Amino acid sequence: MPERQVTDRAVMLDVLRAGRVAHVGVVDAEGQPRVIPVAYGVDGDDAIILHGATSSQLFRALAAGAPVCVTVTMLDGLVVANSSFNSSMNYRCVIVFGRADVVAEEEKERVLERLSEHLFPEHGSTFRPLQAQELKATTVVRVPLTEMSMKSRDFGADDAEDNDPQRWSGVLPIHSQFGEPIPGDHVQVPTPEHIRHWRP
Amino acid sequence: MPERQVTDRAVMLDVLRAGRVAHVGVVDAEGQPRVIPVAYGVDGDDAIILHGATSSQLFRALAAGAPVCVTVTMLDGLVVANSSFNSSMNYRCVIVFGRADVVAEEEKERVLERLSEHLFPEHGSTFRPLQAQELKATTVVRVPLTEMSMKSRDFGADDAEDNDPQRWSGVLPIHSQFGEPIPGDHVQVPTPEHIRHWRP
Repeated sequence: MPERQVTDRAVMLDVLRAGRVAHVGVVDAEGQPRVIPVAYGVDGDDAIILHGATSSQLFRALAAGAPVCVTVTMLDGLVVANSSFNSSMNYRCVIVFGRADVVAEEEKERVLERLSEHLFPEHGSTFRPLQAQELKATTVVRVPLTEMSMKSRDFGADDAEDNDPQRWSGVLPIHSQFGEPIPGDHVQVPTPEHIRHWRP
Repeated sequence: MPERQVTDRAVMLDVLRAGRVAHVGVVDAEGQPRVIPVAYGVDGDDAIILHGATSSQLFRALAAGAPVCVTVTMLDGLVVANSSFNSSMNYRCVIVFGRADVVAEEEKERVLERLSEHLFPEHGSTFRPLQAQELKATTVVRVPLTEMSMKSRDFGADDAEDNDPQRWSGVLPIHSQFGEPIPGDHVQVPTPEHIRHWRP
């Protein structure tokens, strides 16, 4: 498939900063890969933040230093070519390889605030503070952005060797949007203005 | 995180039929997991179809019978709770484990037609036919839907023990939509009606 290797670190960081869910791969004791969607954040420009229940299989593996792959993909469009062979997707995909570093107890709160700011921008002061037992039940890890690669495709279906004007070909752009916010039944305050600015 | 294990095979198949891109995990020779986005299809109710360049690392590993994990995730909403701890995502996620079966040369065309029908419904007769060298350069595999699991979350942020009416909490539904089709420069026919019915 025609696609482009991207080497500009700033572009990769833009993709990581724009996403909310990564597909995280680890290998289990039998050599079976396991790929699980996980909400993530970015810590400055040097690490992905992941968090989960300390008791979970995934976070026990990460805390034990298992090799991990963190993949963030944005699907931008469906590319319909003259042939199914040349049809494709437009996308941006960043893949991070490495091992996770466990965030120490005294650093957890700061790193979880960064994660929260990534997932729910400007909402930090609206959340009730974290409780000690919540912090204790949560494993927080940082996956360093050292081994990182990106591929993307962002062009049309035109293929000079295979363009039949009588066949339709082209791109269907894909957009993700938020619907109207649905407040909880008990909520007696209006939707905060900053939430209206969030991007999906 | 509060989430629900789904065991109904029909519900899992609905999720697989609604998606277009899976995150496929394999393990490389060094034990490093690799997670790559791949366009997929569903073959009846018993297998995922994947295809790619015969020369690619991923498809060489799949053809060699490497253990594989195929994960399809739909992100349905952002769940903002009273606390960041209870905030979450609404989603549907199907995970398939196993090994891929290589589709034999004489079956490739039929299976690729199914894949094409999944990705580009009703468009088969509009595509120019596949050429012999295209078929030859493509590895097609089926991952049987034998070991398959699903998790989903599809409810609000209400948590009876933690509902402060003065804090906003709720759900931001996420919708994926196609923008207006962008035809290739050379195209002289209108966008086919069936394309207007595709869902992203």
